[in-house]
Amino acid sequence: MSSNDYPSTPRNRVRRLPERGSHDRDLIHAILDEGTFCHVGIVVDGQPFVVPMAYARRGGTLLLHGAASSRIMRALAGGAQACVTVTLQDGMVLARSAFHHSMNYRSVMALGRARPIEDDARKKEAFDALVEHLVPGRTRDARAPNQQEVKATTILEFPLEEVSAKVRTGPPKDEEEDMAMGIWAGVIPLRVVPGEPEPAPDLEPGLEVPEYAASYSRTR
Amino acid sequence: MSSNDYPSTPRNRVRRLPERGSHDRDLIHAILDEGTFCHVGIVVDGQPFVVPMAYARRGGTLLLHGAASSRIMRALAGGAQACVTVTLQDGMVLARSAFHHSMNYRSVMALGRARPIEDDARKKEAFDALVEHLVPGRTRDARAPNQQEVKATTILEFPLEEVSAKVRTGPPKDEEEDMAMGIWAGVIPLRVVPGEPEPAPDLEPGLEVPEYAASYSRTR
Repeated sequence: MSSNDYPSTPRNRVRRLPERGSHDRDLIHAILDEGTFCHVGIVVDGQPFVVPMAYARRGGTLLLHGAASSRIMRALAGGAQACVTVTLQDGMVLARSAFHHSMNYRSVMALGRARPIEDDARKKEAFDALVEHLVPGRTRDARAPNQQEVKATTILEFPLEEVSAKVRTGPPKDEEEDMAMGIWAGVIPLRVVPGEPEPAPDLEPGLEVPEYAASYSRTR
Repeated sequence: MSSNDYPSTPRNRVRRLPERGSHDRDLIHAILDEGTFCHVGIVVDGQPFVVPMAYARRGGTLLLHGAASSRIMRALAGGAQACVTVTLQDGMVLARSAFHHSMNYRSVMALGRARPIEDDARKKEAFDALVEHLVPGRTRDARAPNQQEVKATTILEFPLEEVSAKVRTGPPKDEEEDMAMGIWAGVIPLRVVPGEPEPAPDLEPGLEVPEYAASYSRTR
């Protein structure tokens, strides 16, 4: 463990294929900043629920938000044990053998409990961070939340304490005896690519597509 | 509920924004067939864990696979309550107000318990289905799993019983009073796009990129 690592714990140590695991802070932050949504797991009556959700990273904290009335936000706000996972898919790995087929990916898993942000001024800052995470540059233009909208929204802080990354990169790893079978092997890279922005049908005439939408990209 | 629907239960009824929820079988199957990986949630000592995993759909069943030695595969094989969620991200929704920013997405959430496939012949069929799900056409070329590889792999069946879809599509929905503020609004579409296949560095000379890799696409 280097000084830049998040701590390794018995619960978040990467056991399976440990060479793919890491607690490196810069790697973890880079994955979280490139991703757009997370999957949040909570438990209700012994049953796990896994729900996609928007998020943003601010320092060593994730911000999560959703409707104050939703079941999962209520459970999270109440301090339920949670797991937040972000996965970026980088490619399909085609090995010679069916067995060694794989995916290239980068993922982060964080264990912990969230706590609601109650203060209205801090909630507004968190709102900005969430919008900026989705579309960097957008808060300059978007109409800021009013008092009623702030009240209707639950925003949670989820401290990154027990957190790990798992990464697979590179070409397929095949068995020696499969190398000369005349089977093509390699990687099909996959990327999330933005299309041409689609103006709202009720857009006022004369408004140009902003630069942050026209040149949108997740990689920094 | 139509005759083509999966059943709605108290646990999987879509409560929040029910107009986005569905139990339609064709919609659920289409989302599962377009996705490449799922997030599986299980509970260990009250703590939820959410892990990305490859899968395939075969009829009304998901196939999951992983190393027989992994913690989550052991828990799943032992009949742990699980949740399998697949999310496709379709776009960023830029509303005039920060509050109405959203994402377009299609997701499926399935609750239930997995059971291991024990029979070797059925495991080999499931192997094929998993490879075909990742890269349609690939099983014609890939070297089939041998006895040792079949033994080393846990493949689970996860019946689609309690399952629902949630979908957001279309332009932003803004408040009437925000419509004339001169703020651009619309959708930035996002798609998973394959790049040029990257041959393995140790590829035998003279092997062409197969058609299923050169023209890879997730949308059917």
